[in-house]
Amino acid sequence: MITINDIQAAAKTIGPYIHKTLLIRSNSLSLLSGAEVYLKLENLQKTGAFKVRGAFNKMTRLSLQAGQASGKVIAASMGNHAQAVAFAAQQLGKHARIVMPMSVSIVKEEATRGYGAEVVLYGDGFKDALEYAQSQKDHVFIHAFDDEDVIAGQGTIGLEICADLENIDAVFVPVGGGGLIAGIATAVKALSPRTAVIGVQAEAAPTAFLSRRNGKITGQTPLPTIADVIALERPGDKTFELMERHVDEMKLVGEDAIARAVLLFLERKKLVVEGAGAVTLAALLEDCERYEKKRVVLVLSGGNIDFTVIDRIIRKGLVTSGRIGVFEVTLDDAFGKLHAVMGVIALHRASILDIAHDRLAASLPIGKARVIVTAETRGRKHLESIFADLAGKGYEVRYRT
Amino acid sequence: MITINDIQAAAKTIGPYIHKTLLIRSNSLSLLSGAEVYLKLENLQKTGAFKVRGAFNKMTRLSLQAGQASGKVIAASMGNHAQAVAFAAQQLGKHARIVMPMSVSIVKEEATRGYGAEVVLYGDGFKDALEYAQSQKDHVFIHAFDDEDVIAGQGTIGLEICADLENIDAVFVPVGGGGLIAGIATAVKALSPRTAVIGVQAEAAPTAFLSRRNGKITGQTPLPTIADVIALERPGDKTFELMERHVDEMKLVGEDAIARAVLLFLERKKLVVEGAGAVTLAALLEDCERYEKKRVVLVLSGGNIDFTVIDRIIRKGLVTSGRIGVFEVTLDDAFGKLHAVMGVIALHRASILDIAHDRLAASLPIGKARVIVTAETRGRKHLESIFADLAGKGYEVRYRT
Repeated sequence: MITINDIQAAAKTIGPYIHKTLLIRSNSLSLLSGAEVYLKLENLQKTGAFKVRGAFNKMTRLSLQAGQASGKVIAASMGNHAQAVAFAAQQLGKHARIVMPMSVSIVKEEATRGYGAEVVLYGDGFKDALEYAQSQKDHVFIHAFDDEDVIAGQGTIGLEICADLENIDAVFVPVGGGGLIAGIATAVKALSPRTAVIGVQAEAAPTAFLSRRNGKITGQTPLPTIADVIALERPGDKTFELMERHVDEMKLVGEDAIARAVLLFLERKKLVVEGAGAVTLAALLEDCERYEKKRVVLVLSGGNIDFTVIDRIIRKGLVTSGRIGVFEVTLDDAFGKLHAVMGVIALHRASILDIAHDRLAASLPIGKARVIVTAETRGRKHLESIFADLAGKGYEVRYRT
Repeated sequence: MITINDIQAAAKTIGPYIHKTLLIRSNSLSLLSGAEVYLKLENLQKTGAFKVRGAFNKMTRLSLQAGQASGKVIAASMGNHAQAVAFAAQQLGKHARIVMPMSVSIVKEEATRGYGAEVVLYGDGFKDALEYAQSQKDHVFIHAFDDEDVIAGQGTIGLEICADLENIDAVFVPVGGGGLIAGIATAVKALSPRTAVIGVQAEAAPTAFLSRRNGKITGQTPLPTIADVIALERPGDKTFELMERHVDEMKLVGEDAIARAVLLFLERKKLVVEGAGAVTLAALLEDCERYEKKRVVLVLSGGNIDFTVIDRIIRKGLVTSGRIGVFEVTLDDAFGKLHAVMGVIALHRASILDIAHDRLAASLPIGKARVIVTAETRGRKHLESIFADLAGKGYEVRYRT
């Protein structure tokens, strides 16, 4: 089992290759949550995620070991580990072969190729890709999390946090396979034993949470989640052992809470944080009372979110918060009626983004038409004042779901 | 005319209220441009833009002056200055009235209210709002840029850059009214005379550029631009005088280049940068050869971009780079034909985002139908290989514009 000594050694090893990322205080998130909130910006790490720390530590140590200095490494990954191994190999002059399942997103596949790796698409799911990668005996296999050198590399984040800030009450860490939290918890508990280390998972993929509750490793097929890179079948053996020893508590957060957290980072902090990286803020916001006036650190593990996902999160967030309203107005199908409805909306100074006019819906009485309006508003109250005004003028109006 | 002494005094005055923002080296943008690129992150400044520096300096100095300690300030702004004055007033215990034109975006209006300011909507454009604000004699008017205390406040950015980094070849600064560049240029030229200070404007709003070229202040009505907060009718008198003295060169950049720069910051740097803040990267990328191996600093002035704008920029960027392809396929209007087209696209592993089927277009021959496909692809080459395959199978296929 690794100790703080391994992590301190890793810090020396990987120092020349990685960013010592920033730990910043967030006024707006402190105000919002009532806690004193600090953010560890691993989303600004090289390759956009913390995974390079473990990859550099593992691969540098491999080079030192006789017999394994083949210069050829292989990994299986759908996301950040792929880019980390590809980048580290490129920097260290090794050849990297990355096995990805056929279903991997084009963006992640291209990013990995961009770092000079050979990409092999294999199998329908991650498990197939992993088995294939492990079977390639001419390459040294680099596990994404269940490896002591990898864990020690990720643990350097804990060292940096404790060097930059004192009297921390809690550190929130995203958990997938458990490599990140196992490393951070080992470092934090050695340097600041009273600091609570809290692991966070998506409700859709709660295997580390379940394993902790059951006291033994418990697998479960993950459901789709915005926090895709931490949606794993099960935690690792080595990481689970370290979590059992050092992690105080595990929390779960839902998809809406994760989407809201991603949006808050974009809007309030001007930071792109991937779903998995935003679970920490989601967890804090669901438990504000308990952390009131406490000093908490949120680890933002990565920023590699597909733009098509950001797009959906932005829209969802704007609709949920009432800043975009989508509603239907039923009106007489006659000249000037649409003009009159637009007049009401204009009077309330809502900005129309999209409009559709429907006369064919099966549910419409003959002689009626329906307008579907997408409008930018000040929020739910504003939207409801528009509804009330339209209803007062005799129009049937309702949210479109 | 202000000097480095005024800026050093401003730094002391505003120190307790603002973030000393980070200056980070960007590997990915250095690789992309060939220059050694540093970013000054004023988008992570309080209120999301540099404007708080000038606002705090002005308002703190007002408090020290007899007769003006009324505690009531007024400003006219469509954007970042509004939020800056509102926030500074809140922190300093003053009342702020902010005049905004009726056309201001709801998001910016709400953000300003969020900092506790009274918001007055007045007039159709910025000029009306400005005149109204200046006519309110019971409040002290805070100009957005043409004020020596404001300019000195913005100049503190130049001090910080020169304290953090040596041997800078060029600093790129966004220019609207000129307050930011006037302050930065005054500081930089005093501390590092050999460093070139380059101002950047949008082609759509080139009044500082034109004024410099003509050697006298030249006004022009701005056209719509993504860099909306630097789209002004004319630069200031005081700022123009300082620009004439200290600024080496002015550049213009187009809308596509600005959109691309916003997207690069989101994707490569995980940073939200508003259009006006991204013009600096756009200007560098259009002049890579000249800055090869040079050490350049890009000032990212703010991050307050509306999500509806981000949305459009992301889509535009993905389409321009070929990562989203929108194309039309004309096919026989018969059973199984759509299935066959989908088969070709699936074989190329392009991911379909949206699809529409049109049989009514006036240009279609009887017996033909048209499918409009929006698909995620690896880029333009990938898209063209799909086109070639479809054309080879006898389908008419073309880009949808």
